[in-house]
Amino acid sequence: MAVDYEGGLERNPANHQPLTPLLFLERAAEVFPHHLAVVHGPLRRDYRMLRERCVRLASALSRRGIGRGDTVAALLPNIPAMLECHYGVPMAGAVLNTINTRLDPGTIAYILEHGEAKVIIADREFLPSLQLALEQVRHKPIVIEVDDPEASAAARAHSLGGQDYDAFLTEGDPAFVWLQPHDEWDAIALNYTSGTTGKPKGVVYHHRGAQLLATGNVLSSSMARHPVYLWTLPMFHCNGWCFPWTIVAVAGTHVCLRAVRGNAIWSLMAEHGVTHMCGAPIIMAALLDTPAAEKRPLSHQVTFVVAGAPPPEAVLAAMRAAGFAVLHVYGLTEVYGPAVVNEWHTNWNALPPPDQAKLMARQGVRYQALEGLDVMNPASMEPVPADGQTLGEVMMRGNVVMKGYLKDPDASLKAFGGGWFHTGDLAVKYPDGYIQLKDRSKDIIISGGENISSIEVEDALYKHHAVGLVAVVAQPDDKWGEVPCAFVELKPGASATEAELIAHARGMMAGFKAPKRIVFAELPKTSTGKIQKHVLRGML
Amino acid sequence: MAVDYEGGLERNPANHQPLTPLLFLERAAEVFPHHLAVVHGPLRRDYRMLRERCVRLASALSRRGIGRGDTVAALLPNIPAMLECHYGVPMAGAVLNTINTRLDPGTIAYILEHGEAKVIIADREFLPSLQLALEQVRHKPIVIEVDDPEASAAARAHSLGGQDYDAFLTEGDPAFVWLQPHDEWDAIALNYTSGTTGKPKGVVYHHRGAQLLATGNVLSSSMARHPVYLWTLPMFHCNGWCFPWTIVAVAGTHVCLRAVRGNAIWSLMAEHGVTHMCGAPIIMAALLDTPAAEKRPLSHQVTFVVAGAPPPEAVLAAMRAAGFAVLHVYGLTEVYGPAVVNEWHTNWNALPPPDQAKLMARQGVRYQALEGLDVMNPASMEPVPADGQTLGEVMMRGNVVMKGYLKDPDASLKAFGGGWFHTGDLAVKYPDGYIQLKDRSKDIIISGGENISSIEVEDALYKHHAVGLVAVVAQPDDKWGEVPCAFVELKPGASATEAELIAHARGMMAGFKAPKRIVFAELPKTSTGKIQKHVLRGML
Repeated sequence: MAVDYEGGLERNPANHQPLTPLLFLERAAEVFPHHLAVVHGPLRRDYRMLRERCVRLASALSRRGIGRGDTVAALLPNIPAMLECHYGVPMAGAVLNTINTRLDPGTIAYILEHGEAKVIIADREFLPSLQLALEQVRHKPIVIEVDDPEASAAARAHSLGGQDYDAFLTEGDPAFVWLQPHDEWDAIALNYTSGTTGKPKGVVYHHRGAQLLATGNVLSSSMARHPVYLWTLPMFHCNGWCFPWTIVAVAGTHVCLRAVRGNAIWSLMAEHGVTHMCGAPIIMAALLDTPAAEKRPLSHQVTFVVAGAPPPEAVLAAMRAAGFAVLHVYGLTEVYGPAVVNEWHTNWNALPPPDQAKLMARQGVRYQALEGLDVMNPASMEPVPADGQTLGEVMMRGNVVMKGYLKDPDASLKAFGGGWFHTGDLAVKYPDGYIQLKDRSKDIIISGGENISSIEVEDALYKHHAVGLVAVVAQPDDKWGEVPCAFVELKPGASATEAELIAHARGMMAGFKAPKRIVFAELPKTSTGKIQKHVLRGML
Repeated sequence: MAVDYEGGLERNPANHQPLTPLLFLERAAEVFPHHLAVVHGPLRRDYRMLRERCVRLASALSRRGIGRGDTVAALLPNIPAMLECHYGVPMAGAVLNTINTRLDPGTIAYILEHGEAKVIIADREFLPSLQLALEQVRHKPIVIEVDDPEASAAARAHSLGGQDYDAFLTEGDPAFVWLQPHDEWDAIALNYTSGTTGKPKGVVYHHRGAQLLATGNVLSSSMARHPVYLWTLPMFHCNGWCFPWTIVAVAGTHVCLRAVRGNAIWSLMAEHGVTHMCGAPIIMAALLDTPAAEKRPLSHQVTFVVAGAPPPEAVLAAMRAAGFAVLHVYGLTEVYGPAVVNEWHTNWNALPPPDQAKLMARQGVRYQALEGLDVMNPASMEPVPADGQTLGEVMMRGNVVMKGYLKDPDASLKAFGGGWFHTGDLAVKYPDGYIQLKDRSKDIIISGGENISSIEVEDALYKHHAVGLVAVVAQPDDKWGEVPCAFVELKPGASATEAELIAHARGMMAGFKAPKRIVFAELPKTSTGKIQKHVLRGML
């Protein structure tokens, strides 16, 4: 007979509360009311002010009839209003749908319509494309316009006649009793995938996952109390990987940045003592490529959390030399951003730089907040051997995996087949359990029955001095089924011939893997900078 | 119409897993298999070895028929086996009941019987008292004996003929598929209150709370990856405040310590580069009182997390001078140990030391992992004004509050009245929201209708140079109902008269609050070092 550890020991309001990142703000404002919460140009706000503005936003939305399960969209750069939306919108019980500001009006219209946004909070700069979008939307969301003093005069001149954001906040009651989630499974955010093929899908986040990934970020980056965080990563991208919540959990300072430029980053780092920032490798390049005269000495080590692609060896070395610690993470919209981290071993620092770069190129291991990560054969759902060679699909399970795709139960069911989230990314697993991405499953090239990783071919071509950007896709072939074809952008001023590049690649890999054809062309990219391989395939 | 954020977006194994601290070990062993996990005397074990031993323990228990909802008791000092119990026991689906090794056999018997322990894992040193206890227990638990090489020969000579712990582990299968909790609400541990009055109560912890408090400790103490933690706090006390799980979450090193002595602490700190330790103020005193010749220089700042009583001003200053950062936390068995933290403001470091001591004497604010903390009138459940004066009862709610008391639904119901956990501690709330304990509700003295805080009277007497230890309790009085009576232990070699101490106290407070009588005596203490005021009351 087991002991009865259940009877009279049930959940009740005293011992069970929904997990939510919203309480982070409540606590920071209570405990550190005068700690600097937000910097934006000359603007400074402490936690008491930040909280008051978020509560006012929640109250003002509530007075317009916005409540539980309503969608509020945001079309904003990394400015204070965007941060406030991450609290004020869910404090009204609503769901925040941040929209990529670089999207075309047609896609914005699709998202507003599919997500049924009742309100859209938009920076004046983006009102022209919002106007075009709204013309295609059947319902009429309330438009709130943010007039950011840091924007250009031209950007600030736009208006759709919507209410001003600051005036809207004054409608709100700072004593409003904001709505806690009924359940930690309640939706907190809606993020549309960038949709390299087909329509974007609406990924739904819940309060539980947002809370857990936010604290998971603290653990992954060994973040102490009171960090100073520079907003180089768009908050519209997976809710800035949940850092709007992470930084508040440790009562840090948000340094806003409307437009990412290298010299602005350096001067803000120096002025505010920035400790952390995030972004794609392109941000590191912007940092390093800043003219020496505009760089500033760092008073302490700055942690750069990089995702989107592994940091190349030369960039890694240069970042370290400049005083940065680089942390490589990997994830997808469906897992709140980063859910995999390249946990660095201290003794790896003694290795030669090329070996370090190889180790850092690996995506790594699961976040503490992700309960399961493996590379599997998607047909058998068996893990691949940990041999660093056998390709499989990256599978994840745990509390930082999305609720599912909005209004698309079939896609959700498919994504969750076999009790794991199927990422669609192909990877190998090394003997030490670290995974490394090799390709998207749809990007693999099958030539004469052999799988060719387009990434492997691209890596080889990147090692040629003249190659600036490269994308390898499958070209239909009567004999082999498919053969690799490489699209190449040369570096400015550099030159190379097709034969030269093919010969270079053949020197580095099995002959069947080398590209059979090189096309010199500018590569088509999405608004987030991803190369659109489906467009290239269409060209072949 | 709100958007349907529920349909087709349900929990499933891919997006919802029970929170549990057990996965911390799985991850540390996967990612940092060769990182030093355990130090004990000359013994060194890495994370792979620690995990293997825990899985063997789970398997061996399982082979003896131990499973979900069974209780496994431990009567162990801070040695590796105790750490292994924190994983191996719940990995078998069982519930770990750590027992205070200083308890008398009668109380141990009560706990074994009430908790229905099927197995007891005990250090040989405690077998004599276990034997006496078992004679009073109706059922016969399996006894596993731990023979610790760091124990004295006399201690190691004891045996009840039970199986040896290491031999028991060899019965276990290192490939055992350990049992994840079915639900994060499943019990993980059972901790008996020290019971200053009445029978001890069995406090039940769940996996969810253990996971959240363990990561909450990381946030509260700004703990980076790979801390080195010295075990000065008993693991039998609120599961070492959950640090057996905290340290593994950040892949740290556990430095075990069988018996707490000042010189051993100093040499282990120096040898292993200790970064964190916890304990009552008495441990700080042991540290500071170590002869200078036995102290060692610290190579870096060590964080000391103190609970049980606020650190006195002189101790605080001495600790800082010795290179420690002191973090003051407060909690109870019912909230997994610390759930309140004295969050320190950087600008307080500029204040005069007495002002700093006053600020640090306050218990503080809620942990990030505790959703609610307030001081309330328990009759009306209204918060007291934040005036630093009005007494109320400390109330807590959130995910790090116990499931309840085992087999005592009435006590649970009472403890959770009005949707808050009633701590029984009396406190005031300051204008900045920080709380400060004034007394246990049963320790308050009511004299002529006025409340007198026994802590206030004790604080005054502690300021007299001759007073070593003091406890103030109510003495029945025909005229006033109750009057304060102080029991005093003088410092070695010091002297003072009753009249002198009463005059000293009258100089510092309203006359009615000053003690009417002083009794010089050695104070009775519980096995955890708490003064037993009920014994003193009995003497009056």
